Amino acid sequence: MSRWTNIIEDLLSRVSDIGNTILANSDADSIKLSLSEKCQALLSNVGEATGLARSREILDDYKRLDKTEQLAFFQQIYANFGVDEDLLRQTVNEWLKHPDKIESRKIHTISEPLSQELIRRLNLSYGGTAALVKMREDLLEHIKTDLSLAALDKDFQHLFTSWFNNGFLRLERISWSTPATILEKIIAYEAVHEIQGWDELRLRVAAHDRRLYAFFHPSLSDEPLIFVEVALTGDMPNNISSILSGDRQTLDPHLASTAVFYSISNCQTGLRGISFGNFLIKQVVEELKRELPDLNRFVTMSPVPGLRRWIDSKPALATNLQSLVDKLTPLTKKPDDTFIEKNQQGLYQLAAHYLLEAKHHKGEPYDPVSKFHLGNGARLEQINLWADESKRGFTGSWGIMVNYEYDLSSIEINHEHFVREGIISTSPSVKRLYKNS
Amino acid sequence: MSRWTNIIEDLLSRVSDIGNTILANSDADSIKLSLSEKCQALLSNVGEATGLARSREILDDYKRLDKTEQLAFFQQIYANFGVDEDLLRQTVNEWLKHPDKIESRKIHTISEPLSQELIRRLNLSYGGTAALVKMREDLLEHIKTDLSLAALDKDFQHLFTSWFNNGFLRLERISWSTPATILEKIIAYEAVHEIQGWDELRLRVAAHDRRLYAFFHPSLSDEPLIFVEVALTGDMPNNISSILSGDRQTLDPHLASTAVFYSISNCQTGLRGISFGNFLIKQVVEELKRELPDLNRFVTMSPVPGLRRWIDSKPALATNLQSLVDKLTPLTKKPDDTFIEKNQQGLYQLAAHYLLEAKHHKGEPYDPVSKFHLGNGARLEQINLWADESKRGFTGSWGIMVNYEYDLSSIEINHEHFVREGIISTSPSVKRLYKNS
Amino acid sequence: MSRWTNIIEDLLSRVSDIGNTILANSDADSIKLSLSEKCQALLSNVGEATGLARSREILDDYKRLDKTEQLAFFQQIYANFGVDEDLLRQTVNEWLKHPDKIESRKIHTISEPLSQELIRRLNLSYGGTAALVKMREDLLEHIKTDLSLAALDKDFQHLFTSWFNNGFLRLERISWSTPATILEKIIAYEAVHEIQGWDELRLRVAAHDRRLYAFFHPSLSDEPLIFVEVALTGDMPNNISSILSGDRQTLDPHLASTAVFYSISNCQTGLRGISFGNFLIKQVVEELKRELPDLNRFVTMSPVPGLRRWIDSKPALATNLQSLVDKLTPLTKKPDDTFIEKNQQGLYQLAAHYLLEAKHHKGEPYDPVSKFHLGNGARLEQINLWADESKRGFTGSWGIMVNYEYDLSSIEINHEHFVREGIISTSPSVKRLYKNS
Amino acid sequence: MSRWTNIIEDLLSRVSDIGNTILANSDADSIKLSLSEKCQALLSNVGEATGLARSREILDDYKRLDKTEQLAFFQQIYANFGVDEDLLRQTVNEWLKHPDKIESRKIHTISEPLSQELIRRLNLSYGGTAALVKMREDLLEHIKTDLSLAALDKDFQHLFTSWFNNGFLRLERISWSTPATILEKIIAYEAVHEIQGWDELRLRVAAHDRRLYAFFHPSLSDEPLIFVEVALTGDMPNNISSILSGDRQTLDPHLASTAVFYSISNCQTGLRGISFGNFLIKQVVEELKRELPDLNRFVTMSPVPGLRRWIDSKPALATNLQSLVDKLTPLTKKPDDTFIEKNQQGLYQLAAHYLLEAKHHKGEPYDPVSKFHLGNGARLEQINLWADESKRGFTGSWGIMVNYEYDLSSIEINHEHFVREGIISTSPSVKRLYKNS
Repeated sequence: MSRWTNIIEDLLSRVSDIGNTILANSDADSIKLSLSEKCQALLSNVGEATGLARSREILDDYKRLDKTEQLAFFQQIYANFGVDEDLLRQTVNEWLKHPDKIESRKIHTISEPLSQELIRRLNLSYGGTAALVKMREDLLEHIKTDLSLAALDKDFQHLFTSWFNNGFLRLERISWSTPATILEKIIAYEAVHEIQGWDELRLRVAAHDRRLYAFFHPSLSDEPLIFVEVALTGDMPNNISSILSGDRQTLDPHLASTAVFYSISNCQTGLRGISFGNFLIKQVVEELKRELPDLNRFVTMSPVPGLRRWIDSKPALATNLQSLVDKLTPLTKKPDDTFIEKNQQGLYQLAAHYLLEAKHHKGEPYDPVSKFHLGNGARLEQINLWADESKRGFTGSWGIMVNYEYDLSSIEINHEHFVREGIISTSPSVKRLYKNS
Repeated sequence: MSRWTNIIEDLLSRVSDIGNTILANSDADSIKLSLSEKCQALLSNVGEATGLARSREILDDYKRLDKTEQLAFFQQIYANFGVDEDLLRQTVNEWLKHPDKIESRKIHTISEPLSQELIRRLNLSYGGTAALVKMREDLLEHIKTDLSLAALDKDFQHLFTSWFNNGFLRLERISWSTPATILEKIIAYEAVHEIQGWDELRLRVAAHDRRLYAFFHPSLSDEPLIFVEVALTGDMPNNISSILSGDRQTLDPHLASTAVFYSISNCQTGLRGISFGNFLIKQVVEELKRELPDLNRFVTMSPVPGLRRWIDSKPALATNLQSLVDKLTPLTKKPDDTFIEKNQQGLYQLAAHYLLEAKHHKGEPYDPVSKFHLGNGARLEQINLWADESKRGFTGSWGIMVNYEYDLSSIEINHEHFVREGIISTSPSVKRLYKNS
Repeated sequence: MSRWTNIIEDLLSRVSDIGNTILANSDADSIKLSLSEKCQALLSNVGEATGLARSREILDDYKRLDKTEQLAFFQQIYANFGVDEDLLRQTVNEWLKHPDKIESRKIHTISEPLSQELIRRLNLSYGGTAALVKMREDLLEHIKTDLSLAALDKDFQHLFTSWFNNGFLRLERISWSTPATILEKIIAYEAVHEIQGWDELRLRVAAHDRRLYAFFHPSLSDEPLIFVEVALTGDMPNNISSILSGDRQTLDPHLASTAVFYSISNCQTGLRGISFGNFLIKQVVEELKRELPDLNRFVTMSPVPGLRRWIDSKPALATNLQSLVDKLTPLTKKPDDTFIEKNQQGLYQLAAHYLLEAKHHKGEPYDPVSKFHLGNGARLEQINLWADESKRGFTGSWGIMVNYEYDLSSIEINHEHFVREGIISTSPSVKRLYKNS
Repeated sequence: MSRWTNIIEDLLSRVSDIGNTILANSDADSIKLSLSEKCQALLSNVGEATGLARSREILDDYKRLDKTEQLAFFQQIYANFGVDEDLLRQTVNEWLKHPDKIESRKIHTISEPLSQELIRRLNLSYGGTAALVKMREDLLEHIKTDLSLAALDKDFQHLFTSWFNNGFLRLERISWSTPATILEKIIAYEAVHEIQGWDELRLRVAAHDRRLYAFFHPSLSDEPLIFVEVALTGDMPNNISSILSGDRQTLDPHLASTAVFYSISNCQTGLRGISFGNFLIKQVVEELKRELPDLNRFVTMSPVPGLRRWIDSKPALATNLQSLVDKLTPLTKKPDDTFIEKNQQGLYQLAAHYLLEAKHHKGEPYDPVSKFHLGNGARLEQINLWADESKRGFTGSWGIMVNYEYDLSSIEINHEHFVREGIISTSPSVKRLYKNS
């Protein structure tokens, strides 16, 4: 090949570059067009040599899209970066005919949608992971409009499950020595018991008898993925305000017998469905036992967010429970002592009935918090009345809260029984309440 | 369900535990059995609650296997953790009939072999990634014995490509301030120009005009994945000894115009086929330009390891080249000046001919080093005779070495031309040698 | 010496230990006694072998003293740990007689009060430096009651000057990534323009055009010694509110031409008189020039805290100035435009007159801020009216503020002239105001 | 003062600057002159404003001096930066007359030689401390030539004692993860049992049953001040080769009962006389006890470097010992078993006699190692024959080594007895040997 051909080739290539630039600078519609084209170009790079710059460019372009453009972008990716169906048809036909000659594993390889490889390549550049988590956050929104995009989300979910594998996560204690950049995110992300500013945060991370642990991923270094707040106490608590109170007596952690997990918050909407919670609790238990060998109980102080929702969804309850519910419904705050005395037992039974009976059609517990802890192998230990007098607590469950216990010696068995047979590990006292309900 | 049932269930479960323990402690064959069973158990954990401990246990057990047991283990995994073929058959049949109702993406999901999920779960525990990289190193050995295991290796390769994505890697400069644990690995892993002990290492990392950069992965924190050694020089060098020499004059790096990549070594056998090299060079170029803005050339000093192997594999060459080869073959060291003067031009032409003509049947360059740099978009810049007088250099290519140039303005175009059309970017001088050959 | 003697000696020694313990546990007076005794014991340790534990113990005991006990403690130290006067008398007499035989340096060694060695030994244990800084803070209080203790303070001052030598200090940028433990101290220590909580702090450390630098000492790792706040601006500002305002436009720091030092705060009362300020400003200027080479002006935005105090202390001013002062005195806030227009020129002249004429009897500037910056070699650059409308600003100087300029090319000469001859480097515009006053 | 005066002053000042520059660039003699002048200038800076640059300059100039110039420099400093004797004479005369009016402390302040302030100011700039330590190393050399400089050295010693106070030191474990820059210094500084290269170093820092701890100072961050090497063993050893051997069995540190300090090396000649050793051992003991609570003995494996030197210095010994010495003197290596059997007891007694009897005229032990450990409160525990067969060991003490024991319960009492009364804490077995000698 002569040198001139080379030069002419070069010129042509440069012209195409200029073309791309022109496209990139034209109106919104063509940006989208060009973004999809850039994705095509990124995928066609056999040697990945230029992938770094291109993936950066695509992610930067994406950031500038408005909501309408985003939707169009996802739809294009879904439509254009699917499976090579001709090749797949040919392969499965061969396989059906000659299952001995063709490995079924080959079908897996061939049926991988291009979108998966696209996402992997978008992750090439520094900061790619964070951008992709944000991108999935947007995608989850757009699925509400266009259900077909749920199939595209599977790709994200598949890769994120692999990338955010527990082996890659780093448990860190958040303390008053943590940089403010991260502390302000804790304030923002706390989803269970709101943190009202820095002074309240200080109570939760700087007090000697409080702990806060978070999971981090090396590629999202300033972003906690999930965190749990822990109180070190002398006994298993029966209400939340004794834990959150600002003017309580601080306990020497070496005198504590019990660690109370009183709040767990997921931080990244874009990682919805990628579960870290069970690993977090288990690693925190290990960490705490290492630091404070005298701790012997690990319990939660958990809300019962589904109770009233479940009652509202039911046409009717058993007579005795229904009449109690009728009395409870008008309440907006903790009633007087007479009311309590008269209805206390009923309320305990109602809660026990709900926690042990209310199920989704697949047999899973109706209550999401209950499902989470039982699935981790915890035991339903104690029901607490008037334990959360906040508006949210009252609206969700008339202030009822529950302690789940993580008993290390039975956690594995509980988990197996729960997952395989739906058996809920329950303390004798709650069992009794349930039987009488 | 009564409390007694619970207790009896517990007892039964504990008995099974004891059973497992007994199995685990019996002879080699049953360890393998039990390992495979443990893998089964790890996969059957719906909630992943106990996965952490179990994955740790499996990886620990694996470490104790001897070579024969390893082979049996891999064969069992391959045989037992494949695709659910019944479900796959049913799904593809449906899809073939109703391609509009069933998404082809669904076939991908269904055809995933269990072994992939197994590997993902083995990665749950701390240290899992390192153990899996080691495991694949073993697997690559066993494939030589049992070719069918190559299909299992695809799973490792697939996941490692995702996990060792460039976005997760961290470029670090290795210097004399680097911990000795890592420095001794550099000595051990250097694969191109051996490092003979600490004093020689010092020359390569502590001299002002030398650099060494490595890629690290957050889950393999003390293990470099790949590294490149760089010399900062005034000119493009034409032999390797001027770079490696211990008693050369050190150059003030701010006066250097040229960065010479004179050695690239992959460190982890278990990551074979997962490519980092092109990203490494590109990030090092960026890093060097940031630190030393006056650098204006980025070239390699590369061996030509395939030259003599290629000649040996050819029945015959063109007459003039063949007669030269006949004269070269008996040589064991650099010949005298008369010989050189007479044959110099021919030798240049032989090298140019090889570099531009010698291909594998797929059209790729025969020379692996050439293929790597050309694939990255580098230009074949200069051929150097008697440039490496070491035994290895002489045995591979009569001491011929090549400079490839990474010219940032043309790297992308070179890459495109090379990948799409097999065009090799070549300097005018090398082109001339080739034409005359 | 027989073994028995040994044993008896041991017993005696243990008895004395018990004695000490008894003393230590008796009433307040004896604690003081015992503290002083412990100091004696610490000093008498020739080999320093047990000094570590003893110094820790003394510092712990000290912490428990109340104010009265502290005063007694300092008085005892002053009285009992002075100079060995007999030895000194003997030595100086010899020296006076034979100045050739005795080195005058020897007198220095002999006249060192024991209190200096005591302080050095109290610094042996980890945390000693912090405890001694706190101790001096107390001592400074007690000097107000008992002036003789000023001589004891000289020992602290002498050693602190040595220990807090600039060569041991570490300049650090405080940013939003700084641990909260340190950030909350910045809020607490800011002495010039109060920081009202975390949101205001964020404006001063996290905005792209704001900087905060502090000096740290390795033995007081979580305690800033002094810090300076910097605004990066397009021009030299003429009022403080434009700098502190929360809703201002943020400037790209690379477009800034001017760095404004708008607040300097000393943090440790116990380090009073140990000067860091001039080094801080100089190192920050170096740091800023390295990061942002386009910065070309370094000025302050400084209060004039002594103006009104000085006027109040004077029996009378020149007629024209006095009549202006009479009009200004009743003002409690910025007057109306008519007033300003009429008196503006006079006010400028009053300020210029004060800054160039008002001196302490030793010839130093009356204004402490002025003295500080002029002593550092800065130039009196610009006088700004109504520049600080806060209560403090109005009370101190009717809102007048001053820009001092750190002009690197003349800083050294300015300093020499100022220190040797009292010459104040002044901009032409301020000179003109002064001449007309 | 008119503006012109200002300008003329400026001009004059600049002329003097030019003058300085001219001086600085002239011949060697004038460099020294100018250096001393620069020191004068540094001291005359009342406000210290320009001290930073000036101190840097002086230290840089100093580095370029040759040995002759250095001597001249120190002599000038000694001569020119002494005490203000006129002022001192006046003050002491007043004090002698009116001791009630003048504080003796004032004499201390007035008699401080300028050289002390000079050294403090030389420490202003970054890197100043390291340069001053190096400077004192030179000074110690020059004292051998000019004894009067010992008085100047007192200033260095005084300030270094203050700066290198234990409270400022940082204990660090040196391991195989330590940067190579520091590790190579350990190799270089080891003064007791030489480390022959990196492989031997690895044995001492990377083996599970070996430890190496060093003291660092924040201003000399890459330079260890002193380090100690520790072996964790099952028993108190009786020879050094079992500790240094490369092919010994490694012990699980949790099974060790004894920590053996087998080598202590001072690293900085410029810090001679500033003692860290006793603090180092004590902090290492604390550190080891925290990590390995089962350790219950802390002993040394120490040479007896003064034994033969002492014998040589004596005109005669007691007859029995003398005849033994006569037999030992011709030996160049460990003699045969017959010799050993016959003389063993005598050799033990000779060693015991030396360790308990050989004193300097001030009553201190003759053996420097013995003096160090006894001064720290250790007990003379065991004498070991043929314990060090190296040339150095044989030349110094016919291979005899000693275990000193750091018994935490008696360390303080031992120290007191030793320092106050010269009593050497001795084990019964050594006592018996001594009595029989």
